[in-house]
Amino acid sequence: MPALRHSPIDDAWQAIDACEGFRSIAIDAMGGDFGPLVVVEGVHIAMSQLSNNRLHGVRFLFFGDKPQIETELAKYPKLSAISLINHTSVIVTNEMNPIDALRHKDDSNLGLAIAAVADGTAHAVVSAANTGAYVTLAKVILGTLPGIDRPAIPGMMPNKNGMSVVLDLGANLECSSERLIQFALMGEVLAKALFNKSSPTVGLLNVGTEEMKGHAVVQQTGQKLHLIDKKTQEDPDLDRFSFHGFVEGTDIFRGVTDVIVTDGFSGNIALKSIEGAALFFFELIKKSATESLWNKFIALLMRPILKNVKKTIDPRLYNGAVFLGLKKIAVKSHGGADPFGFAKAVCVAINMVQSNFSDDIEKRLQLVSKIQ
Amino acid sequence: MPALRHSPIDDAWQAIDACEGFRSIAIDAMGGDFGPLVVVEGVHIAMSQLSNNRLHGVRFLFFGDKPQIETELAKYPKLSAISLINHTSVIVTNEMNPIDALRHKDDSNLGLAIAAVADGTAHAVVSAANTGAYVTLAKVILGTLPGIDRPAIPGMMPNKNGMSVVLDLGANLECSSERLIQFALMGEVLAKALFNKSSPTVGLLNVGTEEMKGHAVVQQTGQKLHLIDKKTQEDPDLDRFSFHGFVEGTDIFRGVTDVIVTDGFSGNIALKSIEGAALFFFELIKKSATESLWNKFIALLMRPILKNVKKTIDPRLYNGAVFLGLKKIAVKSHGGADPFGFAKAVCVAINMVQSNFSDDIEKRLQLVSKIQ
Repeated sequence: MPALRHSPIDDAWQAIDACEGFRSIAIDAMGGDFGPLVVVEGVHIAMSQLSNNRLHGVRFLFFGDKPQIETELAKYPKLSAISLINHTSVIVTNEMNPIDALRHKDDSNLGLAIAAVADGTAHAVVSAANTGAYVTLAKVILGTLPGIDRPAIPGMMPNKNGMSVVLDLGANLECSSERLIQFALMGEVLAKALFNKSSPTVGLLNVGTEEMKGHAVVQQTGQKLHLIDKKTQEDPDLDRFSFHGFVEGTDIFRGVTDVIVTDGFSGNIALKSIEGAALFFFELIKKSATESLWNKFIALLMRPILKNVKKTIDPRLYNGAVFLGLKKIAVKSHGGADPFGFAKAVCVAINMVQSNFSDDIEKRLQLVSKIQ
Repeated sequence: MPALRHSPIDDAWQAIDACEGFRSIAIDAMGGDFGPLVVVEGVHIAMSQLSNNRLHGVRFLFFGDKPQIETELAKYPKLSAISLINHTSVIVTNEMNPIDALRHKDDSNLGLAIAAVADGTAHAVVSAANTGAYVTLAKVILGTLPGIDRPAIPGMMPNKNGMSVVLDLGANLECSSERLIQFALMGEVLAKALFNKSSPTVGLLNVGTEEMKGHAVVQQTGQKLHLIDKKTQEDPDLDRFSFHGFVEGTDIFRGVTDVIVTDGFSGNIALKSIEGAALFFFELIKKSATESLWNKFIALLMRPILKNVKKTIDPRLYNGAVFLGLKKIAVKSHGGADPFGFAKAVCVAINMVQSNFSDDIEKRLQLVSKIQ
């Protein structure tokens, strides 16, 4: 990463590089709707949420407008002590399209934050930049794993039993069977790292759970995933890949499986429909709660209960999507995330760095060759 | 319909046939989870919900096991007076697959109820039979409109401003641009008949609202629908086809458009995800409401508010899907519908019969040729 080497903080960087035990997280300070104000406080909250044990050896490398970042960091001396700033002359804004962002891959906040991971200075990057620009730069700078054309973007959904990983929510709108299988394998490894489960279950989203349901691609994918499951059971060196079979839309919330696999088109539509349903539901309650004075009174009393419900489905809790299929770790925060939400994305990155995530994914993807 | 002509109620049928003003609704009395018990009470509720004006000239023709239907009809003398029963020797059960159902198209409750519409004895058929068997028989017996291979199944969704039609929720899992355009045109006519709007708006479900979003089929469909909109504006003889453009999952509940068009795969997943989300919310509230004695007390108080919310999203309110693309009118009730739900499906059928639904659909579909 030559750009960094010319900065006045060379010595500090080199000191970090030299320290084997350190785990550095590159933070794009300028991404998202609010820039350093939210990002820096978010990292501070993440710090306070992590145990000393998990925080040990973690360092943060901020990329963006130095004066702004310094102003924010000054509020949090403890964070400041384990942070470094790399000033970048160009800022990738939220509105910047992927092509313009690519043009500035060598001199922008986002480009240099990702490059820090590519050259090993950092172990993961977190940004709230717009998805198009981020995924394009990450793909170009970090590279994809063998057989992966485009990274997948997973989402997290609450359910009866906890959480599940749903993918793809990204740009893979039309998926071949091969791609859906990759999603299944990568999603399983992610669930393993996030939920600390030895053998998370995987379901394939379909219009019904019966074996004859669905179109040709889903049918074929289901058959192949059953085969992969069987292969892992026969091989004592492999962890079991637990394929549950087809799941329906209703099963997402039943917590039937830890991972739910679908193409980017259906995934996006499912997620946004659910988001819309949640908003509608709260609006209906609000509307009904203002219909009479008595209802207004009850509405006041029921606030804590609704707050509890909101807490479970709070999207901030599920912030932090790891791009799947890249050679290194890049985590995307929602652009509109508040500090609490950004903190979750930072925690996801630290979680990933401290697991064998990238190696595990590569190993899992090799399973594909076993069914051909 | 020769089978009917041999029955002992020939004279009555002929009397009905002779009376031009009559509108007969064929009712499959045996469909659904509960058979005549729910079906007959459902028709009775529909009767009581319709104004005298709308009920004028309406007759019901029940198909199935005569003794069972008679027992139920005996409870409702007013309904009995405007009903006829056609006993069928074979009953198509809920579990019967389409192939077996087809084998009995000439001697079963479902087959003969549909045939009554085909030969003009009835003007619409309502059944709660399983979708596969029903849609297959309806397609074979009633036939599809020119250019339609398989009927589409629309669903109704509540939203901020009222209701919208979402289609396809049926068996058209993978859709060409041509098919999506047919859905758009037929959905618009349905919305016109159901919502009594002169120019309902139509949206195409996509992963974003921007023009460059989506895969090739969605892109192409969007462009063609814009063209159709333009053509209808240029031709003073045509009602405007109001194409809004792309809509997202969140827009379903915002009531952005009256009609939302998508393929059967995404449609099914959106609908079931929403269904799952709604159940999950109520469960979360229930769970939180039992956490303390105080919460239990509040839960009691908030019941009326939640009841209000449930009333808006009550799926029974939206029961009654008209198969789109058939030459005549066939309405599907949910198999698990209670009498109130079945009544809604009957009302939809009467609504359709009293509008120019079938003619309007044929006219609208002719628009496709204008953009080629």
